[in-house]
Amino acid sequence: MRLTKADRAPKGIAALFARTRARTGELASRLSPEDMVVQSMPDASPAKWHLAHTTWFFETFVLKPYEAGFRLYDERFPHCFNSYYAQAGTRHARPMRGMLTRPSAAEVLAYREAVEERVAALIADPPAEHRAEIERRVELGCHHEMQHQELLLTDILHAFSLSPLEPAYLAPAPIVVNPDLGAADWHSFEGGIVPIGTEERFSFDNEGPRHDALVHPFRIAGRLVTAGEWAAFIADGGYETETLWLSDGWGAVQREGWTAPMYWRHEDGAWWTFSLRGPQLVDMTAPVHHVSYYEADAFARWAGKRLPSEFEWELASADAVDDGHYLDGGFLRPRPTETPAGLRQMAGEVWQWTQSSYAPYPGFRPVDGALGEYNGKFMVSQYVLRGASFGTARDHVRPTYRNFFHPHLRWQFAGLRLAEDL
Amino acid sequence: MRLTKADRAPKGIAALFARTRARTGELASRLSPEDMVVQSMPDASPAKWHLAHTTWFFETFVLKPYEAGFRLYDERFPHCFNSYYAQAGTRHARPMRGMLTRPSAAEVLAYREAVEERVAALIADPPAEHRAEIERRVELGCHHEMQHQELLLTDILHAFSLSPLEPAYLAPAPIVVNPDLGAADWHSFEGGIVPIGTEERFSFDNEGPRHDALVHPFRIAGRLVTAGEWAAFIADGGYETETLWLSDGWGAVQREGWTAPMYWRHEDGAWWTFSLRGPQLVDMTAPVHHVSYYEADAFARWAGKRLPSEFEWELASADAVDDGHYLDGGFLRPRPTETPAGLRQMAGEVWQWTQSSYAPYPGFRPVDGALGEYNGKFMVSQYVLRGASFGTARDHVRPTYRNFFHPHLRWQFAGLRLAEDL
Amino acid sequence: MRLTKADRAPKGIAALFARTRARTGELASRLSPEDMVVQSMPDASPAKWHLAHTTWFFETFVLKPYEAGFRLYDERFPHCFNSYYAQAGTRHARPMRGMLTRPSAAEVLAYREAVEERVAALIADPPAEHRAEIERRVELGCHHEMQHQELLLTDILHAFSLSPLEPAYLAPAPIVVNPDLGAADWHSFEGGIVPIGTEERFSFDNEGPRHDALVHPFRIAGRLVTAGEWAAFIADGGYETETLWLSDGWGAVQREGWTAPMYWRHEDGAWWTFSLRGPQLVDMTAPVHHVSYYEADAFARWAGKRLPSEFEWELASADAVDDGHYLDGGFLRPRPTETPAGLRQMAGEVWQWTQSSYAPYPGFRPVDGALGEYNGKFMVSQYVLRGASFGTARDHVRPTYRNFFHPHLRWQFAGLRLAEDL
Amino acid sequence: MRLTKADRAPKGIAALFARTRARTGELASRLSPEDMVVQSMPDASPAKWHLAHTTWFFETFVLKPYEAGFRLYDERFPHCFNSYYAQAGTRHARPMRGMLTRPSAAEVLAYREAVEERVAALIADPPAEHRAEIERRVELGCHHEMQHQELLLTDILHAFSLSPLEPAYLAPAPIVVNPDLGAADWHSFEGGIVPIGTEERFSFDNEGPRHDALVHPFRIAGRLVTAGEWAAFIADGGYETETLWLSDGWGAVQREGWTAPMYWRHEDGAWWTFSLRGPQLVDMTAPVHHVSYYEADAFARWAGKRLPSEFEWELASADAVDDGHYLDGGFLRPRPTETPAGLRQMAGEVWQWTQSSYAPYPGFRPVDGALGEYNGKFMVSQYVLRGASFGTARDHVRPTYRNFFHPHLRWQFAGLRLAEDL
Repeated sequence: MRLTKADRAPKGIAALFARTRARTGELASRLSPEDMVVQSMPDASPAKWHLAHTTWFFETFVLKPYEAGFRLYDERFPHCFNSYYAQAGTRHARPMRGMLTRPSAAEVLAYREAVEERVAALIADPPAEHRAEIERRVELGCHHEMQHQELLLTDILHAFSLSPLEPAYLAPAPIVVNPDLGAADWHSFEGGIVPIGTEERFSFDNEGPRHDALVHPFRIAGRLVTAGEWAAFIADGGYETETLWLSDGWGAVQREGWTAPMYWRHEDGAWWTFSLRGPQLVDMTAPVHHVSYYEADAFARWAGKRLPSEFEWELASADAVDDGHYLDGGFLRPRPTETPAGLRQMAGEVWQWTQSSYAPYPGFRPVDGALGEYNGKFMVSQYVLRGASFGTARDHVRPTYRNFFHPHLRWQFAGLRLAEDL
Repeated sequence: MRLTKADRAPKGIAALFARTRARTGELASRLSPEDMVVQSMPDASPAKWHLAHTTWFFETFVLKPYEAGFRLYDERFPHCFNSYYAQAGTRHARPMRGMLTRPSAAEVLAYREAVEERVAALIADPPAEHRAEIERRVELGCHHEMQHQELLLTDILHAFSLSPLEPAYLAPAPIVVNPDLGAADWHSFEGGIVPIGTEERFSFDNEGPRHDALVHPFRIAGRLVTAGEWAAFIADGGYETETLWLSDGWGAVQREGWTAPMYWRHEDGAWWTFSLRGPQLVDMTAPVHHVSYYEADAFARWAGKRLPSEFEWELASADAVDDGHYLDGGFLRPRPTETPAGLRQMAGEVWQWTQSSYAPYPGFRPVDGALGEYNGKFMVSQYVLRGASFGTARDHVRPTYRNFFHPHLRWQFAGLRLAEDL
Repeated sequence: MRLTKADRAPKGIAALFARTRARTGELASRLSPEDMVVQSMPDASPAKWHLAHTTWFFETFVLKPYEAGFRLYDERFPHCFNSYYAQAGTRHARPMRGMLTRPSAAEVLAYREAVEERVAALIADPPAEHRAEIERRVELGCHHEMQHQELLLTDILHAFSLSPLEPAYLAPAPIVVNPDLGAADWHSFEGGIVPIGTEERFSFDNEGPRHDALVHPFRIAGRLVTAGEWAAFIADGGYETETLWLSDGWGAVQREGWTAPMYWRHEDGAWWTFSLRGPQLVDMTAPVHHVSYYEADAFARWAGKRLPSEFEWELASADAVDDGHYLDGGFLRPRPTETPAGLRQMAGEVWQWTQSSYAPYPGFRPVDGALGEYNGKFMVSQYVLRGASFGTARDHVRPTYRNFFHPHLRWQFAGLRLAEDL
Repeated sequence: MRLTKADRAPKGIAALFARTRARTGELASRLSPEDMVVQSMPDASPAKWHLAHTTWFFETFVLKPYEAGFRLYDERFPHCFNSYYAQAGTRHARPMRGMLTRPSAAEVLAYREAVEERVAALIADPPAEHRAEIERRVELGCHHEMQHQELLLTDILHAFSLSPLEPAYLAPAPIVVNPDLGAADWHSFEGGIVPIGTEERFSFDNEGPRHDALVHPFRIAGRLVTAGEWAAFIADGGYETETLWLSDGWGAVQREGWTAPMYWRHEDGAWWTFSLRGPQLVDMTAPVHHVSYYEADAFARWAGKRLPSEFEWELASADAVDDGHYLDGGFLRPRPTETPAGLRQMAGEVWQWTQSSYAPYPGFRPVDGALGEYNGKFMVSQYVLRGASFGTARDHVRPTYRNFFHPHLRWQFAGLRLAEDL
């Protein structure tokens, strides 16, 4: 994928930090204090919590060890806004984050501002012997915050979906009727022993060590599965045909009563979805999203194909067309492909489920200390998603990026691309 | 109980309406918009919902049928703010009330103001043929709103108890060490056939029809059970002694891990409680509260006594001293009795569990229409509480008043008084 | 009700004991060892457990205190077969009773035989100073066992209903088409102060003390509500009309998906039920059963009537026709009334829900020791049923008898009779 | 591993079938009809169900398509005893298997005998054109039945553990105090591109296609982790140290209250376990078992090592010493290693958790029809175990065998071996 650092401007840690923090502020600016406090399910967090937690991250991992004369902004905040770092102290129970009516949104914004200034000052004038580590940690903090930017969107969408008022985060945007896309084109790869992962700055620890993997010959679709193709799966009885499903997946279908992607509903002969732009007609030529791994897997079986492995995806991504739409564009909905050929939509519309269980790469060792808890402890029972979505900041996109969720979850901006053995 | 209408001033429906609405506004004024949106459990409701629901009640049952040229304030609100009136239209699911980030607190306050003005105008200048019914319904709406005033307090206390910041709704108030109260004095009643209930204006439908009941001779304690007496029950192994408990109660103790009243915790050798004034030492001479029916019953068995029936309570209340402290005083905590003798604390500190299952009085018939759903459909599996609490408006206190909750619930301001057979 | 001791023969404790034990043995004789071990839900118990528990009762409360040289039959059994008597030692968790594959059915039958012989010997030749108490306790043990005879039937019916083989406990019996019963006739009572309960031998502690109660004028139906009347309730949308239901009842309807009495299903245009005689057509003129209190209450509201109170029922029962069919007859299904007039079916077809919460009578005090746990600790949140059913032994029937279950339960042989204010 | 077919005698399908069926019969012969009916949790099945289901498998997949004049033994049985083959018809709900008191154990044994004779006859005299497929299916059925032999043991152990009588499936066997084993020795492997899996007869579909995999250099322990080593993990606070655990694993520890392997309890200063031989002292030098993947992973982290991948395990197994004890020996407990050197205990004591998520091998395609449901639909969220246990039939052991369970499950005979990067 030609998504390299060279694409991103302006450069430098200070700029990245400023840009990232400003983007979060902008995302929050569309929400009322009340919107920001609500937690709609244990998997989701309040917007205010995202704002505060990302700030706590900088305060804890950058200011605390490296700022001269460091003092906590508020002694009560670490317990409130630590997410899961056991080595960083106690923490408020995750399912109770919605009880944090205090501190107020205004107080959290003030907290953000104060920490931001201090971090900016430290970046500008760091103790020489810690400069490299400070920059490394600020960069990590920015990428951490970009993850939470996307979560803020997935979480507020879920909360809004449970309100009888069906609020729109953003003004509705008309659906443009696209020409028929035709069947997906396919791209073949010979595989072999290929290098996977990266240790370059910047990457998360779970993307390394870079190592050799053996990839067998395969083909991969030139574009993502569309909502229209998904509607055909539904119409063909996909959600009622047990033999298409993994056993755990069929259990979920039965238990949860799934009959379509999350947020879809059928009204007056048409499929509607609840989106960041409120209730909207489903754009049938755009990539389907809000599907679980179970659903993605069942669709692939129905189509006579399979999901790609994360190694196949990473190998293929080197040939990708750079056609993605990201958070920065502010469209907040996946777009149909308009590129005539090539391996399109490898990033920037919706995340892509792979068949790969989230596992450590050979030789993986978490760093010492609380930051080592960042990724490693989630490496069980989750599945890797690759690419990026309309809710991902462009700065955050890398071909080696490994996103991961449990296979039953549907509230993320997750879709799929098909593959098959050659 | 000498708590008669004569005590209350100024008189008249318009004054009652103004006073009630103003009190709600004052209660809400101590909360931030974020405090007002949170729902901490399905049994509780957000403060904002209480504000809007009580307004919806006036709009639906007073304005809609009687205001000339009536138009809904907002067509989306009835679905949001109907509680349980099946005949008044659809409604938002109760456990999802915390998802109502919209309308905002400000919008709800504007809704309150607009409806308030229209109701006040209707009271001032009603269609002559409907004057009586309008006044009856406004009075009902005021009493309905007073119920929600107390619920607003019990619910925000519960929500605050789950916040790591332990916010205080009101400034802490020091505990005054009282002289030892000594054992409770006892008051005997011969019973016989006694009139129970009332049909007077104003009363809820569940307080009538007034009818004869047969009461056997009994004695009743002159004051409420204190927190200090409860501490002795705990110290004596009350929560570990199965034979003191009803079978369902012991199940709750085991399942929930109860070892003390709700909100109590033992720290540094003393009992603390979480209250509307934040964490406070337990006032050992004040009435215990935040206990379930199961606990009240077990305590009574431990003490060799029993709970009074609601008929016993009502009969005895005619002799009560008028020493209660109510919501109007703003103390928001029960006080120790300071009255030297007589049947004290019959109202105004904490609600008093009775042994009476909540059931219709002989001849009870709900009124036609949605207002008939007010009380009748809850007449199963709940137990009657009598009296009133520090969270009840004085206007709302009547000796025939029947409060009711399920026997496992503890978040109300509920305590007990002992009785025994003569 | 003219159901007095005089009806019962042969007399005497020894005969009662022999008759009761033999009946249990006969009930069990239709079950295989495997049928006897299964526990289909926490509310139900395995047949084998019923057999052993009733034996443990005699061993613990008769032999242990009064048999010279008493030794436990098996030291492991008390823990296995104590139900809920906290003062009688530890006990196996109720929901785990189905794990008792050992002792085997054969071992339990041997246990029964051994204890039976020893009890019979003790009855025949008691220590003179304990004769009265021994007889009292044996009589209690027999009545206790008769309760478990009925439970054995309700529980095995539930278990069989979950088997794909739908086993019949007894051979199917054809449904006789009865002449139309016509509307129920009604019987009026003036009420007044009436004596309620009994302290006579034999009665359970919860039937006393005998005391005065005030009963207001009422009418009561001459027969039970029939299955045909219930089918009309269903056809009229009874299960879909929220306003007919108590709030808790409507919650149960929604949560459990109730659309008919338990075990009913609609097939090929007819209502079938699963019964002790396997799948059978519903006998439309026989009393409906397997309904919860919630359903009984909703039906009564639909019919414009109400359930009787237990005091009304007991007062009326003095005039009852003695037309009941009991366990002794072995028909194991309710029969339509064939009696032309009078207050019929007051006992012996199905238990009758009353509107009365199960509560202690004035002056009630449990006896000291474990036997005091028999009834008192269940006096909360349950509702009283009066009468008796086709599964009740005739020896067990008394007009003062108070059966009780939680209002959501449906697996008992419970139906209803209507009443109304005069 | 030198566990080849050559080890097994007598050869031939008829002998395998006879041997397998006889072994199941012998396993069941120690159980009473009541033991055989009980289902202790949804994950477990009754022994009787295992007996019938394995017979149904032969009836459905061998007799039905290939026996001349085939007739179902009993038309009701397929619904009762189909496990999860959607294409083979309807099925009784898994959590309700314990309700199958009918058919009786005797009837199921008769069913076994009848089907057995017919299968034996078909093996002896097959239609020539189907001989190969019949033999293939009989062999599959035998291996299927061997899986259920082990499950019968794990399931009855779980059921017995919930009985207050703590029945022993087999007589207790004394624990022999072994000499100290010392630290494990380690074996290094260079890895590289290695062939994995097999398509040989006999193997399950999930063991193929045989394919190349890339294995990085690693070391693996010469023996399994012992109970004594696990006791040291416990003593060192392993179950209380969050940082040792995967996030999902820590959640399970908190939720389930795990403090030791399943069935362990600490009494009088020693660790006891509940085993197929009843309560026994833990054999500290024997391999630990009844641990979940989460626990195995936490132990490995505590030890500074990791679990092997299934590819590493398979590569290493080529060098294994043949020292295993299997079901055939009838000891039914893991033994300490007594072999002085080499890669020991690679099969035959306890299954070994690997770090590998259960996934299809490259090019995997289930066969058409119901038999294709055998393995593929479980390939999500489960983890591979390699080796075999004391409960596995020797006929069933293969170095390419892939067992699999969800990571929270503990009732299997599962332990672990450590590995690390070279």
